[in-house]
Amino acid sequence: MPISTIEWKSSHVRIIDQTKLPSRFAIINLKNIRQLWKAIKTLQVRGAPALGAAGALGAYLGIKDSKAKNWKQFKHQLKKVIGYLSTSRPTAVNLFWALKRIEETANKNKQKSVNEIKEIILEEAKRILREDKDLCRRLSKHGARLIKNGDALLTHCNAGALATVDFGTALGVMYQAKHQGKKFKVYADETRPLLQGARLTTWELMREKIDVTLICDNMAALLMKQGMVNKIFVGADRIAANGDAANKIGTYSLACLAHHHKIPFYVIAPTSTMDTSLKTGNDIPIEHRGRNEVIRWGNRITAPLKVKVYNPAFDVTPAKLITAIVTEKGIFKPNKLSKDNSK
Amino acid sequence: MPISTIEWKSSHVRIIDQTKLPSRFAIINLKNIRQLWKAIKTLQVRGAPALGAAGALGAYLGIKDSKAKNWKQFKHQLKKVIGYLSTSRPTAVNLFWALKRIEETANKNKQKSVNEIKEIILEEAKRILREDKDLCRRLSKHGARLIKNGDALLTHCNAGALATVDFGTALGVMYQAKHQGKKFKVYADETRPLLQGARLTTWELMREKIDVTLICDNMAALLMKQGMVNKIFVGADRIAANGDAANKIGTYSLACLAHHHKIPFYVIAPTSTMDTSLKTGNDIPIEHRGRNEVIRWGNRITAPLKVKVYNPAFDVTPAKLITAIVTEKGIFKPNKLSKDNSK
Repeated sequence: MPISTIEWKSSHVRIIDQTKLPSRFAIINLKNIRQLWKAIKTLQVRGAPALGAAGALGAYLGIKDSKAKNWKQFKHQLKKVIGYLSTSRPTAVNLFWALKRIEETANKNKQKSVNEIKEIILEEAKRILREDKDLCRRLSKHGARLIKNGDALLTHCNAGALATVDFGTALGVMYQAKHQGKKFKVYADETRPLLQGARLTTWELMREKIDVTLICDNMAALLMKQGMVNKIFVGADRIAANGDAANKIGTYSLACLAHHHKIPFYVIAPTSTMDTSLKTGNDIPIEHRGRNEVIRWGNRITAPLKVKVYNPAFDVTPAKLITAIVTEKGIFKPNKLSKDNSK
Repeated sequence: MPISTIEWKSSHVRIIDQTKLPSRFAIINLKNIRQLWKAIKTLQVRGAPALGAAGALGAYLGIKDSKAKNWKQFKHQLKKVIGYLSTSRPTAVNLFWALKRIEETANKNKQKSVNEIKEIILEEAKRILREDKDLCRRLSKHGARLIKNGDALLTHCNAGALATVDFGTALGVMYQAKHQGKKFKVYADETRPLLQGARLTTWELMREKIDVTLICDNMAALLMKQGMVNKIFVGADRIAANGDAANKIGTYSLACLAHHHKIPFYVIAPTSTMDTSLKTGNDIPIEHRGRNEVIRWGNRITAPLKVKVYNPAFDVTPAKLITAIVTEKGIFKPNKLSKDNSK
């Protein structure tokens, strides 16, 4: 049974609370825009494509009870809603991409009544969710060509069903390869500080009966040296025009190590993750998060309370360290991505 | 005030219980060899030079109440004691080095009475502790030459006072540089899975008023890319004849990343860490530890309970990735170390 990470349920957004996994599979309902903003901020819902879906549905939550009497009033309210949602997380571009799409859809229909525009926004948001499901399946089919029998793959963070509407990108490729009957194994980086690899990726892969072994992030180099992994698959949160890709902190480290050990390094993401307005990855804004993510675990303190902490949530992998980027349109050299995907 | 990690107190071994730091500074007394073995196994005392000291004192704890009537009986008991202590941890050579030294000292004095030999063993163990204090200070003076004003250093795991009898190797170098009035800052890898960097290194450095910032292991590459660190200092658990060095898991990863970013990578260790009986690092036995270190944090489970876990406690950094090795005898190119330190 596929995992449904985010859905629209007649009056609210239904998500899996990812902060509770793997101990508990908890569903929560987000009934207003503040709840949804907080769910994004606290990573109850995360993953670039899922953030796009959450943003679109969030925009609808924000305007569905609007009392605007005309387009001008409504437009003003929608702008405020979109501005508010934009403040939740800065790095993944899919959020901004989806919000922009909602805004453009509203603009195109401004001659219609406010109630009609509201309905159109909901339909557009639902379309973004449907499209994401489709994109994930298409890119997974392309990516699965890269997996051979006997491969030992390594992945970082969670680019699975839990990072998308329901299927995944880097993990979607694995689901597809498994579906094709290929035999392979996977190592999952635990992905400090928030352990999305340990908590979410192993949970997903075990659920799909894929052979997965958990490691700490700092063990990946040893695995490569020992010939224990031969391909790396990761997702992305934003890809610049030149093919530089932002993803969860630690991805750049893996890419350097893969380069050192001559292991192919693949980035798997839908084209909604591309941001061709940015020439290079240097322009991608990197979110920095709080110290408690690093020094606390539940009630336990794992470092002196007053220690200084540096906690960037993402890093940027330069295109030259990426073997290929897989989108729903195919498999591309990073420097060709922008040209071939803009069609 | 210096930290005294391990001491002999008339009838027992007094150690800092490092599993309790930084939440609690707990002193424990080890009154028999079983308690000492367990303290090593559970990492209440850890760090290659400290393990040498613990091994030597442990040998004395093991034979101090011997009822042996002659050398033959005593020798047999001592062999058993040494064999038992050798099973505690396999990678750090200092433990074996110290046990061998105790055995040889006993052998040299076999014509003496059992009680005299016991006293001689205690004296030799205490000498190993005194020597370690001296070695750390000498190697730190050599190493401090490598630190300049304005440097930003990175270290991994804990190679400080808590890893030695009382001063440290990689951190000893920093203490010495600070004492010389040099201004620099330090980043500490938290060092998964057991967080010796987060728990011990930051605690030690803050205590000595050295500017330290904690990062997750997977952030080190980003720091290097951003020019935020310019030198790396780590300890070692065993150094082969060719200069390959085993150290805490993640060290090899750092060395690859340092190489990629053209950042000098220094290993700091006393000559007691050298094992010239091993031609290369491939012959160094690597300890693998239990799954719970990776999937549990206190009472919290951080991954599906049944997930497979790969948990090597050490890795080996090849000599070619090491800029220099600092011992109490000076600063050496890794490939020259064996020749120049055997004098």
